[in-house]
Amino acid sequence: MVRVVILGQGYVGSIFALGVERIKNGELGYYGIPLENDLPIKIEDIEIVGSYDVDKDKIRKSLYEIIGNYWDGHVPKNLKNIVVRKGIHLNSLRNLPFEVEGLEDEMSLKEAVETLVNEWKKLEVDVIVNVCTTEAFVPFKNKGDLIAAIENDDRERLTATQVYAYAAALYAKETNGAAFVNAIPTLIANDPAFVELARESNLVIFGDDGATGATPFTADILTHLAQRNRYVKDIAQFNIGGNTDFLALTDKERNKSKEFTKSSIVKELLGYDAPHYIKPTGFLEPLGDRKFIAMHIEYVSFNGAVDELIINGRINDSPALAGLLVDLVRLGKIAIERKEFGTIYEVNAFYMKNPGPQEKGNIPRIIAHEKMRTWAGLKPKWL
Amino acid sequence: MVRVVILGQGYVGSIFALGVERIKNGELGYYGIPLENDLPIKIEDIEIVGSYDVDKDKIRKSLYEIIGNYWDGHVPKNLKNIVVRKGIHLNSLRNLPFEVEGLEDEMSLKEAVETLVNEWKKLEVDVIVNVCTTEAFVPFKNKGDLIAAIENDDRERLTATQVYAYAAALYAKETNGAAFVNAIPTLIANDPAFVELARESNLVIFGDDGATGATPFTADILTHLAQRNRYVKDIAQFNIGGNTDFLALTDKERNKSKEFTKSSIVKELLGYDAPHYIKPTGFLEPLGDRKFIAMHIEYVSFNGAVDELIINGRINDSPALAGLLVDLVRLGKIAIERKEFGTIYEVNAFYMKNPGPQEKGNIPRIIAHEKMRTWAGLKPKWL
Amino acid sequence: MVRVVILGQGYVGSIFALGVERIKNGELGYYGIPLENDLPIKIEDIEIVGSYDVDKDKIRKSLYEIIGNYWDGHVPKNLKNIVVRKGIHLNSLRNLPFEVEGLEDEMSLKEAVETLVNEWKKLEVDVIVNVCTTEAFVPFKNKGDLIAAIENDDRERLTATQVYAYAAALYAKETNGAAFVNAIPTLIANDPAFVELARESNLVIFGDDGATGATPFTADILTHLAQRNRYVKDIAQFNIGGNTDFLALTDKERNKSKEFTKSSIVKELLGYDAPHYIKPTGFLEPLGDRKFIAMHIEYVSFNGAVDELIINGRINDSPALAGLLVDLVRLGKIAIERKEFGTIYEVNAFYMKNPGPQEKGNIPRIIAHEKMRTWAGLKPKWL
Amino acid sequence: MVRVVILGQGYVGSIFALGVERIKNGELGYYGIPLENDLPIKIEDIEIVGSYDVDKDKIRKSLYEIIGNYWDGHVPKNLKNIVVRKGIHLNSLRNLPFEVEGLEDEMSLKEAVETLVNEWKKLEVDVIVNVCTTEAFVPFKNKGDLIAAIENDDRERLTATQVYAYAAALYAKETNGAAFVNAIPTLIANDPAFVELARESNLVIFGDDGATGATPFTADILTHLAQRNRYVKDIAQFNIGGNTDFLALTDKERNKSKEFTKSSIVKELLGYDAPHYIKPTGFLEPLGDRKFIAMHIEYVSFNGAVDELIINGRINDSPALAGLLVDLVRLGKIAIERKEFGTIYEVNAFYMKNPGPQEKGNIPRIIAHEKMRTWAGLKPKWL
Repeated sequence: MVRVVILGQGYVGSIFALGVERIKNGELGYYGIPLENDLPIKIEDIEIVGSYDVDKDKIRKSLYEIIGNYWDGHVPKNLKNIVVRKGIHLNSLRNLPFEVEGLEDEMSLKEAVETLVNEWKKLEVDVIVNVCTTEAFVPFKNKGDLIAAIENDDRERLTATQVYAYAAALYAKETNGAAFVNAIPTLIANDPAFVELARESNLVIFGDDGATGATPFTADILTHLAQRNRYVKDIAQFNIGGNTDFLALTDKERNKSKEFTKSSIVKELLGYDAPHYIKPTGFLEPLGDRKFIAMHIEYVSFNGAVDELIINGRINDSPALAGLLVDLVRLGKIAIERKEFGTIYEVNAFYMKNPGPQEKGNIPRIIAHEKMRTWAGLKPKWL
Repeated sequence: MVRVVILGQGYVGSIFALGVERIKNGELGYYGIPLENDLPIKIEDIEIVGSYDVDKDKIRKSLYEIIGNYWDGHVPKNLKNIVVRKGIHLNSLRNLPFEVEGLEDEMSLKEAVETLVNEWKKLEVDVIVNVCTTEAFVPFKNKGDLIAAIENDDRERLTATQVYAYAAALYAKETNGAAFVNAIPTLIANDPAFVELARESNLVIFGDDGATGATPFTADILTHLAQRNRYVKDIAQFNIGGNTDFLALTDKERNKSKEFTKSSIVKELLGYDAPHYIKPTGFLEPLGDRKFIAMHIEYVSFNGAVDELIINGRINDSPALAGLLVDLVRLGKIAIERKEFGTIYEVNAFYMKNPGPQEKGNIPRIIAHEKMRTWAGLKPKWL
Repeated sequence: MVRVVILGQGYVGSIFALGVERIKNGELGYYGIPLENDLPIKIEDIEIVGSYDVDKDKIRKSLYEIIGNYWDGHVPKNLKNIVVRKGIHLNSLRNLPFEVEGLEDEMSLKEAVETLVNEWKKLEVDVIVNVCTTEAFVPFKNKGDLIAAIENDDRERLTATQVYAYAAALYAKETNGAAFVNAIPTLIANDPAFVELARESNLVIFGDDGATGATPFTADILTHLAQRNRYVKDIAQFNIGGNTDFLALTDKERNKSKEFTKSSIVKELLGYDAPHYIKPTGFLEPLGDRKFIAMHIEYVSFNGAVDELIINGRINDSPALAGLLVDLVRLGKIAIERKEFGTIYEVNAFYMKNPGPQEKGNIPRIIAHEKMRTWAGLKPKWL
Repeated sequence: MVRVVILGQGYVGSIFALGVERIKNGELGYYGIPLENDLPIKIEDIEIVGSYDVDKDKIRKSLYEIIGNYWDGHVPKNLKNIVVRKGIHLNSLRNLPFEVEGLEDEMSLKEAVETLVNEWKKLEVDVIVNVCTTEAFVPFKNKGDLIAAIENDDRERLTATQVYAYAAALYAKETNGAAFVNAIPTLIANDPAFVELARESNLVIFGDDGATGATPFTADILTHLAQRNRYVKDIAQFNIGGNTDFLALTDKERNKSKEFTKSSIVKELLGYDAPHYIKPTGFLEPLGDRKFIAMHIEYVSFNGAVDELIINGRINDSPALAGLLVDLVRLGKIAIERKEFGTIYEVNAFYMKNPGPQEKGNIPRIIAHEKMRTWAGLKPKWL
């Protein structure tokens, strides 16, 4: 059994909860789940036990009601049993068209953290999945500063994700261990402050920023070119979508975090910093969750010949990440059982855009996949 | 020193010879050469000592003159020293707008083979590179049948490539060993008849069909999808170009061989035979050597979401293959020195569309690259 | 009231019948119908009164049952009243995976024609819409030869479409006039034999080959380039789909007819025959009715600069044509009322890939649209 | 004879001057010039007599020297005779990596205008072509305010283009008339202040913003969809390039002007404001003058079917505009001869992204082309 709490009951969290229930009901197969049902912990063992949000329209509603906003089909009835609780916002929805409400509106951050820890104890949570909206943030780097910010109720310094991760560490310490899956760009697995705290607190951290969409695909394409010693002259990559995440990224500060995540792959995989323009570009509501990507790569081949690749896609954003979460919560539980606390590069290198810890970088996804399988106790497919 | 003979002095053979000389002259870097100059045998050690063709317009001309048809820039003067000799055609240019002339027009195939072997002895050839036009062919499978066809002068049964490969085996047996690099689709490394003959004759075979263009790229994309357990609904891939190879492929029989090569990757990498249409599609003269490729892939992600990828490219066909040949002739020489006769899967799996021996299939190129490096005595980059 | 008979109850015919009923029921708007509901004859006036097919699985079934194969949604109940009758096949489904049955299996072609004419009289048909499968055919050019072929029961010479068009002329002559809309490539509006016959018989012919998909779009793009005096170096256009029409086009003979239709636009719009490869390329079942198109155009701009356009699309094939039919049946009725018999270029130039009569060619669609509006008695939008 | 002065000797101005000279020398044909050499005023009649810039590196250099930065090939020697003069900057290169110098650094704006007028009188200028860098600007709307700004030396209010256009009016009034071709986004032909001034001053204005690149192409595509009554759900269009114009557009204020120009076509051609994201997106130096465009359009066809178009291009930015200028300077001269002062919609509607006067909007380019031909005294091609 893996008991899961979702932080941020938006598109991704809803498709994740829905998909898991549909699989349990035999309505859905394993497509989009990298490890299918090959792990010793089965998909059927996943139990979603709680959910948090700060959108007034969602708090106190059941997942059954909320999922109806994101999905036309049949929603399993037992999702009526999970009711969204009030989480922490800390301005994370600033400038977005939502009315928000958070625990911190009624108490100090420290008290909010205690509230969460107590609730999680009652829920006997194993894995906490963070799929909040992308935030503007500053990493802590130093554990002391992080603790001080909580103690001082420093609401300008902290983001929701940072407070949630802190609460996860506290909870893990007081119980048998837990896992925190950070699927958004805020640096957690790449922030030494959190990694150190996690190691001391029986917390497993996976992060940062779930590797969906164009970035991991670009990673494999760049590897393909690098292995043939083709010199990449330039890369332009555009992304436009119509879900809340794209809306949030029209905010410059948030966009910056994303750009950082995406750009690092160029240098890490090619070995040089090819000129590139890689960023989420815009919000266009009717595209919905199925974003449009466009990429242009120009490279030099033998004898100075110049080739061009143009890649376009219509990609469902949220299901891609939701499918990864089905693995990540199970791998989190496995890590807890093995008592491998801190963060685990073998997992992050495949599942995350910005794999922690910070001293490690990106490797080709195709190779990362094999190493991750090995870590998970499965046979590699091609090595 | 690697002494190389080129069979088929067309676009690929010309760019290969040109590029190697330009590198020696310091006019060109290593882009497009996967192993750069990292092997113990250096690019500067490559010596092109002979060339064969069957186009009346090319025979007896120097490489210097011929390369001028394919390249606007400066052609190194020392290419004047290599003069194209008469090879074997066996209808390999049937239906193409060339006047042809071959050794077999004046003598039996057996005598033609002896003529070649004698010439190669004088040239002290190490590596024979086959870059003839794509042929319609039937593999032999049985060594006895192959030998009988030569003995019986069976011109309907044999193709130019098959006779050349046979001559290479004879030559290797009578000297210290040699290598035959088969960069076209005719099955040689995948024909047990030739592999057995090679093993007995001190011949190294690399083949079949140099892995350039859309096929190896598709291989890595399919691997990317497979590793995320995305279900590929369909793949459509078009190729159109304006060089002689595309002209040759307008011939249905030749096209068939190509289609076979390209399609096998789907099942081998995905694990199931996703519906696909993958073939060279047409000839359009003004495109020249820079072919246009278009690919559409539709797949199912988590919760039944359907994504689409559309990939287009303008790709210089001949330089891509020529760059691989710079590695392959050096790896051939290394294999001769190590006395690893027969065919070598570790090399073929990265460099060939249809890697021999026949019992092996395709693996992801990104992984094949690392294994190939290991075979070549280099450190893998990511493993 | 426009009383319509459908020849060929496949995808297009089914979406046409379905869409018209849905509009009458207020379930659907006018998107995809060029003239919306602006004509004096209203969409609500269209009455589908009969349907013909030669697929044993369809004959004697109601449209309600058949449409269920092509459409997941709600099918209006009154489509139960139209039952598919037995038509003429004349090998038009040769090599396709259908069991066929035609009037001509039991009688001579002449008798079959009389049977049709009698049925149409009872149905009081105004407009006959031909949406049969693409045929291999030879045009007649001479009216005498056409009549002789019918008289002599020459089943090798005639195609289903030719017999249907002949029957339409006979029917029109014996009644107040009728219209025949030929939406497939068989030359009817471009065959002087049929145009002459129509003029003498009170028949309106619209044709040939409904202008959907990439061809009219390419026409406007080429006009765009021509108007800026950009020199088109080459055009490659691929189409692949998964409906019966694409399956039929895997047959070489049928494909040829299509290629002819598509290629003529290049010379007619550019003024010179730019090198091009424009043909339906393949069949890939899972693509269904939503075909994939890929087009590459390379052209020379000022000062010798070379630009490239790459156009891809996923286009629903059948609805595009079905939407045009909603106009064409109404325009057919208008032409009958005006007694403009023969064929009408102003209509064909916008709605048809190969607009008849044969002495006329393609003009830019954007201009053809305005001329068509004028013919139809509507104000042009931009002229 | 058409005596031309160029304002802004950048990429466009250089390719324009180069191309005209090459045509005169018989080195170049008419590709990229919409009206070829069909006007009564011939391309050979174009005489470039002066050039202005504010980049210290360009002032006092000859066109021969400057063109060498933009063109690898042969530059005609007689371009040595035209030396770049000092123009007006008014912060128009703010934030760009150039050292600037302008007439206004040494005198009042009014004196600068007089200086220009005097120089133009000596040069006997007919047509002044404005191809300055895109500016941030505010239109005047009221002639009095414009004159007051000049009188008051209001350097914050005015842009270089506005001052140049004012000088052109003064010059035209004192001579036989002149033409001002505004090929950049600053509103001139769309600013009633300038149009009124021009009408009173014997000045012809063509503008605004030369219709090159993706915008006119999009215009024709949207018309294509509108004529079939397809409902456009959304349009995303990205542009990225490596020339100075793209660098300038990284400045938010300038970008805004561009966005305005590009967006207006959607509503004007479709009749409704389909959700769209159309803007220049980024700067990527290695792309150079050959920008990359990517466009995605989703629309509803008959029976609710949803189609997708994806359009990519590599387009040489400057030659496209330079080719239009070859027509515009000749049409300017024709207008002067006809004494059609003010602005001329028939010309603007084809050649300009934002065709003045302001009360007129965009019409389909394919139709605008025919009307422009008629205005120019040529036969329409298709009407």
